[in-house]
Amino acid sequence: MAGFRYHLKRLAPAVSKNPVKRAMEEGAEAMDFKEVVENRRAVNYFDTQRDISEDQLKQMVEIAAKAPSSFNLQPWNLIVLRDHQDKLRLQKHAWDQPKVSEAPVTMIVLADMDGWQPGHPVMEKDFAELVKIGMLQESQREWFENGCKNLYGTSDARKVAFACKNAGFFGMNLMLAAKSLGFDSHPMDGFDIDGVKEAFSIPDNYWVPMLLAVGYFRKDKTLLPPKWRKSYEELLVRFD
Amino acid sequence: MAGFRYHLKRLAPAVSKNPVKRAMEEGAEAMDFKEVVENRRAVNYFDTQRDISEDQLKQMVEIAAKAPSSFNLQPWNLIVLRDHQDKLRLQKHAWDQPKVSEAPVTMIVLADMDGWQPGHPVMEKDFAELVKIGMLQESQREWFENGCKNLYGTSDARKVAFACKNAGFFGMNLMLAAKSLGFDSHPMDGFDIDGVKEAFSIPDNYWVPMLLAVGYFRKDKTLLPPKWRKSYEELLVRFD
Repeated sequence: MAGFRYHLKRLAPAVSKNPVKRAMEEGAEAMDFKEVVENRRAVNYFDTQRDISEDQLKQMVEIAAKAPSSFNLQPWNLIVLRDHQDKLRLQKHAWDQPKVSEAPVTMIVLADMDGWQPGHPVMEKDFAELVKIGMLQESQREWFENGCKNLYGTSDARKVAFACKNAGFFGMNLMLAAKSLGFDSHPMDGFDIDGVKEAFSIPDNYWVPMLLAVGYFRKDKTLLPPKWRKSYEELLVRFD
Repeated sequence: MAGFRYHLKRLAPAVSKNPVKRAMEEGAEAMDFKEVVENRRAVNYFDTQRDISEDQLKQMVEIAAKAPSSFNLQPWNLIVLRDHQDKLRLQKHAWDQPKVSEAPVTMIVLADMDGWQPGHPVMEKDFAELVKIGMLQESQREWFENGCKNLYGTSDARKVAFACKNAGFFGMNLMLAAKSLGFDSHPMDGFDIDGVKEAFSIPDNYWVPMLLAVGYFRKDKTLLPPKWRKSYEELLVRFD
């Protein structure tokens, strides 16, 4: 990370309910966004001697939870594993990757395919809030429910797309929030989704879009150079 | 946005190939990550008089493209609309939301469900790079191809999950990169995916996980307070 400037600042101690403000009040390093993006790397080796405190973890998750979502439905949850035996149990279904148990915290990110359904507590809370702030009227409940159903509920593909796109927002924010607090992470796809769901009794309404190991990079290891990315010209397409 | 500090710095002019470094060299505002997360809001009204330059847009997209992805497959592309008629054509399929055409730039984010297939140019480039850096050997091609196929290709749901999770990473990064450069954005789900695909001749291998309007907030409008988010306690679950 040589060559990057960290903007350190420490503010007077205080306790704010806002996780972003609290992190800064508590003296978290303020790190420029572009540096966070640049410094976030998928790290294969974690220092098994360095833990992440419960308060640090909470800050990370609460910052990440600021991600937007379809109609604010926030169709994501987390299983947070700290116990070594739990992590080994997960590792067995994750191609036996050592980082699953070497990281102090390993998360199973869950994407709720039913997050748009009428009666879902988050959906109900969202609707109530939209009525409260005057954006919708109680009489528009059917219109709102049908809108969600037509967008997210008319096929399995749409349910998966809804859940995984939004969980992708949250997952990206988790990785960046980790880096902004000085942690390293590694997102993993290499796992048996059915095995993981069975091992942790995860209900059918959840897809498991990723595992995320979080901790500190092992200093005796060397990071490979960043992988290539598509250029702007490669990213932009037009078919009409 | 009162109450947040922007950390301004201007460095000596230079031209770097790295989009993050270039943005900073060119005097982009350095904004603390947590402030970017906090200040990113879905903005309903865009200033129709303020444009985004091609260079600004390129910076935004290149910063966002630093998002990680499954095996670095980067299964995402963008259709960038600036032409007013093009935007009106999209708006027709997007619940006639005025912001689609009021924003100077409106993007159709594409998620490539075939991004893991053997023969896909990105997949081939990835494999070649993994061989080059010694992480894989040429003889492991079949193993690599089967791994991707088993993870992403065994059902329509898996293809959609692969494409949309990764496009979600990219989409989140796009919104944050926009904010870090001083732009506002609005992610949209309210559109007819089949209508949009037909109107812009988008091939079948793409899912359309979101539209994204990018520009500047109209200063004569007032932003609603941020919507509620799930608490840490609500986010963490356990079923076993």
